[in-house]
Amino acid sequence: MMLKFNEEEYRKNLTKQIEYIAEGKKIADEIAKEGYKNIFFVAVGGTIAMMMHFAEIAKEYSSVPVYTAQAGELVLAGHKQLTKDSIVIMGSKSGDTKETVAAAKWCNERGIRVASMVIDPTSPLGKESKWCIPLATFFGVEYEYLNIMGVFYGLLANQGDFPKFDTFYQQIQDKLVDGLVNVQKNFDDRANAIAKKYWNTDYQMWLGGGELWGEVYLYSMCILEEMQWMRTKSVTTAEFFHGTIELVEKDVCVFLVKGVGKYRPIDDRAEAFLSKYTDELNVIDVAEYMVPGFDKEFEALISPIVSTALLNGRLSKYLEHYSGHDLNTRRYYRQFEY
Amino acid sequence: MMLKFNEEEYRKNLTKQIEYIAEGKKIADEIAKEGYKNIFFVAVGGTIAMMMHFAEIAKEYSSVPVYTAQAGELVLAGHKQLTKDSIVIMGSKSGDTKETVAAAKWCNERGIRVASMVIDPTSPLGKESKWCIPLATFFGVEYEYLNIMGVFYGLLANQGDFPKFDTFYQQIQDKLVDGLVNVQKNFDDRANAIAKKYWNTDYQMWLGGGELWGEVYLYSMCILEEMQWMRTKSVTTAEFFHGTIELVEKDVCVFLVKGVGKYRPIDDRAEAFLSKYTDELNVIDVAEYMVPGFDKEFEALISPIVSTALLNGRLSKYLEHYSGHDLNTRRYYRQFEY
Repeated sequence: MMLKFNEEEYRKNLTKQIEYIAEGKKIADEIAKEGYKNIFFVAVGGTIAMMMHFAEIAKEYSSVPVYTAQAGELVLAGHKQLTKDSIVIMGSKSGDTKETVAAAKWCNERGIRVASMVIDPTSPLGKESKWCIPLATFFGVEYEYLNIMGVFYGLLANQGDFPKFDTFYQQIQDKLVDGLVNVQKNFDDRANAIAKKYWNTDYQMWLGGGELWGEVYLYSMCILEEMQWMRTKSVTTAEFFHGTIELVEKDVCVFLVKGVGKYRPIDDRAEAFLSKYTDELNVIDVAEYMVPGFDKEFEALISPIVSTALLNGRLSKYLEHYSGHDLNTRRYYRQFEY
Repeated sequence: MMLKFNEEEYRKNLTKQIEYIAEGKKIADEIAKEGYKNIFFVAVGGTIAMMMHFAEIAKEYSSVPVYTAQAGELVLAGHKQLTKDSIVIMGSKSGDTKETVAAAKWCNERGIRVASMVIDPTSPLGKESKWCIPLATFFGVEYEYLNIMGVFYGLLANQGDFPKFDTFYQQIQDKLVDGLVNVQKNFDDRANAIAKKYWNTDYQMWLGGGELWGEVYLYSMCILEEMQWMRTKSVTTAEFFHGTIELVEKDVCVFLVKGVGKYRPIDDRAEAFLSKYTDELNVIDVAEYMVPGFDKEFEALISPIVSTALLNGRLSKYLEHYSGHDLNTRRYYRQFEY
């Protein structure tokens, strides 16, 4: 019996969200018909972190420039590349995140088109969006990645940059639900052991790079800091070597989330170094837990979903269990105005 | 008598580097003559952090897309927007930073033009660069900002995006040297007091945003972590509200570096919150130390130089003094191969 894992509901929600990829693709087709010169991802916190994955993938795939912008910053200074010819992809699960709603309004006032990930199309963000990309459920970053995949890879497909859209989508439909259930099961014991050992550390370093950097940034800031009040330092694996490395000592707890894409050699370098200089290294290698049945070239695209199943799906639940600190408890956020 | 401050040498080096802005402008003119479709900043660690400032300014000023890329990542996956029509601006003070030299080679193999900030044009990076932008001296991030200013604002001027180049440069020539000497003097006592109180804290949070985010990222990672082995968490002021905020308690040490540009309202919001919920808030407000004599619109462009004079120029020296930990001591970096 796995802690806080409702397999039936997980399967149902994933299946639903995977169906919604077709909706995202349709929206992409409409946007492509209208035309656009660049793509902006605009959100805050966990949502912009999740979107960083797509901006990273864009470097390799997209012939059209792709940017990310923090919603709270965007409305203050604008961005010269953001014009009526842009398409802005936003998201807020609650649909009422202050900065994101303000950014959507800001875009509308300038005639800039917004497509948003929302659960409720009648929410403030939903109302400010020309297109609503349906999100099946609130808890679980898996659904958010899948939500964006339809519109993002749909746009790339329309650009001629991702001709294998149908194959990719077919493999998601065929393999992902069973695959993710197994990811959670396969990591469950280890998540328990990690949480038991490290739930009470005074400091953790979290490393990851490329298409998993958003994951690591999100997990460190929005889960460990926000939901468990644990002190962390997240840094890209590539940048780790240029500063944070000096903090490594035998008893310093380091998590390295290893990717399966082109940046893996950097992760390998970090692992080789860290395994010598700390006794508290935890390598969470997405390759070890990879959902089988995907073409090699799709593995990096699926990797953040696997990573979030490991970290958010499993590790968080056990951290909550050992710390006794409910993941929904907040000191400040949405507790009062500030 | 200020700690480790050689005014004569500081004036001499600054004057030299300010002269070099004209060299950077000449390089920009040549590049503009040849033409380019976008600008890439490529480096690692403190150098890419310093360059982030210019990418941030570009959002507001540049009609041409501007990107940053971490050198170690770039060579592994490339970037679809990086082509022969790009101009790549790199930098390495030593001229031999492994990842940056490799990235310059990678660019050359693809016929992509590189302009680099180097002290020694015969260094490995210098040799791989079509243009060398002269850097007067090794220690002091002021020189690095000034180094990039010539080529960056020169390119913007050529694009028609910064018609006031000459006015800006004139004010730098007229005001900056005396101004920065005074910045150091004005902050000296406070730097001493801050260092005395906080040199031995087990954790510090560092906040800053927009055109100062690179500064805060750099100071946290490349100075406090790398040179003082202090645990830090740096986060943009805008993102602070979406996770890290929950770690604030009465005794948590927080540094907020306030900017003078369009993002200042976010800094104000953070200050209002933090002043209520921690007793250990340190606001380092660049506005308070601003070099006088610049047009209002230029203040944000000068702000990282002021910030680095405060932080690297003064605070670091006192941290070193109280900790007894020489800023040049490293456990790992450049101590052996890894």
